Amino acid sequence: MKVAILYSGGKDSSLMAVILDRLGYDVELVTINFGKYDSTIPARTSAKNLGFKHKVIKLDQQILEDAVEMIIKDNFPNNGINYIHHTVLEILSDEYKVIADGTRREDRIPKLKFNEIQSLEDRKNIQYLNLTGIGYKTINDTSDQLFEIQKAESDINNSSDYEMEIRVMLEELGYDTNEIFPQHIQSRVIGWKKNE
Amino acid sequence: MKVAILYSGGKDSSLMAVILDRLGYDVELVTINFGKYDSTIPARTSAKNLGFKHKVIKLDQQILEDAVEMIIKDNFPNNGINYIHHTVLEILSDEYKVIADGTRREDRIPKLKFNEIQSLEDRKNIQYLNLTGIGYKTINDTSDQLFEIQKAESDINNSSDYEMEIRVMLEELGYDTNEIFPQHIQSRVIGWKKNE
Repeated sequence: MKVAILYSGGKDSSLMAVILDRLGYDVELVTINFGKYDSTIPARTSAKNLGFKHKVIKLDQQILEDAVEMIIKDNFPNNGINYIHHTVLEILSDEYKVIADGTRREDRIPKLKFNEIQSLEDRKNIQYLNLTGIGYKTINDTSDQLFEIQKAESDINNSSDYEMEIRVMLEELGYDTNEIFPQHIQSRVIGWKKNE
Repeated sequence: MKVAILYSGGKDSSLMAVILDRLGYDVELVTINFGKYDSTIPARTSAKNLGFKHKVIKLDQQILEDAVEMIIKDNFPNNGINYIHHTVLEILSDEYKVIADGTRREDRIPKLKFNEIQSLEDRKNIQYLNLTGIGYKTINDTSDQLFEIQKAESDINNSSDYEMEIRVMLEELGYDTNEIFPQHIQSRVIGWKKNE
């Protein structure tokens, strides 16, 4: 059975890919781009190095603009990022019957609430799954066993998160993105550990 | 890395076993028994047919008695079953560093809340994981691909759920267990699908 997994090149979405692949799913990694900045290279590289099929899906830049407007109004990124994620899942639900992402137990944003998942599944007649049953310690340990991981200060060229195109649009509008998105260490999966 | 998975012989805990095995964990299936009735045979049989290590851990019958007392007082099984599950996880946390169960997205009982998981992990310095990120449709589809499944009316001899010993104790005390536990169809994993 085919599954589309929203993919950033990070540990969480890579682990979801491995779980579903090893359960027998036909995994297709999907990275979203709004045509503002090509932030898809890290995800494409990680997917290729892991040997998974990967697809970039271009969506209407208006979605990004609406999110950026929310972020400016809030002076805080959470609602805007959550808006993008929900919108993306709604759109993917028209194309795929099974959709997954790498959101884990502690994630707050982006995240679908239980009732939002039920609604999405029922309205669109799809299945959605994520890593909410697993915490960061288990994900770190498991990823360390499976993957070669590169850690670096977050930067628009080492992640394919929604954050990257948001940063580019905010900077164009003259905002200081380091104030809105605090710097953090980004973990990127660069391939398999040798014994995998 | 070793993981203890609370195991009933059902689809959910079997799927958790397959996921963690295929991620490289050293899986040990664990079925709890309180010495009231040997309800462990279905779980032992399923574990053997899937080729996983399996262990029965006997715990103090007082835990079962306390749960049954709660169930009689409530005339409803939920609090009692939840009490057993929480108590079992507390005890297993002293023996294992990674503990899992097959509770899934829609499960309400037994289930650990987010803050209860955080507390358990922090106090006991362990990792706990479950299938909360996955809904019943996905679990059914995946299990149908992986396992030979036997469906039957629930009965004390076709499941190793906590419910079974609770029923035996309630019946001894003269209660009508079919009133407290409505009959339902029990799915039991009896082995691998031929192509697995």
